[in-house]
Amino acid sequence: MSATTTPLPKAVIFDAYGTLFDVHSVVAAAEQMFPGHGDALSQLWRQKQIEYTQLRTLADLAGARYQPFWNITLDALRYSARKLGLGLNGAGEKRLMDEYACLSAYPDAVPALRRLREMRAGAGHVGLAILSNGNPQMLDIAVKSAGMTGLFDRVLSVDAVRAYKPAPAAYALGPQAFGVAAREMVFVSSNGWDAAGAGWFGYTTFWINRAGAPAEELGVIPHGTGGGMADLLDFIETLAPPDKSPGRSRHSPGG
Amino acid sequence: MSATTTPLPKAVIFDAYGTLFDVHSVVAAAEQMFPGHGDALSQLWRQKQIEYTQLRTLADLAGARYQPFWNITLDALRYSARKLGLGLNGAGEKRLMDEYACLSAYPDAVPALRRLREMRAGAGHVGLAILSNGNPQMLDIAVKSAGMTGLFDRVLSVDAVRAYKPAPAAYALGPQAFGVAAREMVFVSSNGWDAAGAGWFGYTTFWINRAGAPAEELGVIPHGTGGGMADLLDFIETLAPPDKSPGRSRHSPGG
Repeated sequence: MSATTTPLPKAVIFDAYGTLFDVHSVVAAAEQMFPGHGDALSQLWRQKQIEYTQLRTLADLAGARYQPFWNITLDALRYSARKLGLGLNGAGEKRLMDEYACLSAYPDAVPALRRLREMRAGAGHVGLAILSNGNPQMLDIAVKSAGMTGLFDRVLSVDAVRAYKPAPAAYALGPQAFGVAAREMVFVSSNGWDAAGAGWFGYTTFWINRAGAPAEELGVIPHGTGGGMADLLDFIETLAPPDKSPGRSRHSPGG
Repeated sequence: MSATTTPLPKAVIFDAYGTLFDVHSVVAAAEQMFPGHGDALSQLWRQKQIEYTQLRTLADLAGARYQPFWNITLDALRYSARKLGLGLNGAGEKRLMDEYACLSAYPDAVPALRRLREMRAGAGHVGLAILSNGNPQMLDIAVKSAGMTGLFDRVLSVDAVRAYKPAPAAYALGPQAFGVAAREMVFVSSNGWDAAGAGWFGYTTFWINRAGAPAEELGVIPHGTGGGMADLLDFIETLAPPDKSPGRSRHSPGG
């Protein structure tokens, strides 16, 4: 019977921006600077940021068009302010980029990560990682300012391969880091397109649909979907039932 | 002196959707079906359509995730209607997709194409082509319904390489079709990202900024920009001054 027991995921890999860190926590500062336009600026900024990462990677997978996420984030801010007719000067740019450097974590993020670390100490070893478009320096600051220091085994940046998600080279960083197949890991993202890309690549995927958005029409369905981290924990516990079956014994602690 | 004369472009290659064909000519039908939401549906539909082409190509340049533009256009419509909370049934889908199949041409498109054909009959040979994300059947219907039959030497679809713009394989169709270097051809698009992609690839580029949008912050500037086809003709005539210099004689008719 043990051969048919659902295995624990070997690792849980999180997208960062939008999934752990609230990219729209810049709205308050943006609204203060441009009353009535804070939400529109935040939305367009995020949209252009993602678009620019994808365009640059798509135009040249060899990385010649690659720019670090920080630079692209600034480019996207400049475009968005102009598109909305907002006069954004150097000081304004700096203020909003500073906000972006220290985004708030979603309130359910740290408790869920702590819970996953506890599961790791139980039956089987569950690795925890970030796999993000953010460049290493951005991720370092964001992890620290969100109080997530020490919660991850690995913080993986696509900067290592100069290709943004959903390029396969970016998703490949997960299996490379943990030495296990993508399907044995759960990839968690609040971005529907990212969950789709990870699913295409071969991960077991969980879409945290924080915004209540419709499912993307990309012909690939996440293995799990929910509104927040509690649903993710339920999903993972379904994959890894409590250690009461003899079949669990094949998961040696730390193995 | 003849060696320094600016050469005529060997070919002018047009993006189709948004550049020759008005993708927002579906607004009237959409507005009739969903009063007050026609413009929002048209805008989001177009945005998701482009996003889906890029995601599918980015996720797998080998073409395994490729779907023809018609299918992607339908996927994008379905997502957009759900996102906006519009109840779109099968008959509504069909009506809007039928509209999309026969988009209006911009009023300045056919006259400009005719003028370019005349230039071709003069000094030097200027090839005319479409290079589009549209699949061949879509392009065939669109060209016919826009009264553009016979105006192009080639109608090139990225379907041949199963990779959407701005993938280099898509832009490479132009040089392959005409047997000349990209920089000797003018690539014309109303989509800022497409002009950027073509510029990265190496084309001489002209951005028809029909929407009065800000320039994209992608670190590449179009060689020419204007508000419509008249500006494109001016730009090309600047590249190819009237045949009054002895240097022009090196452009043999038809060569």
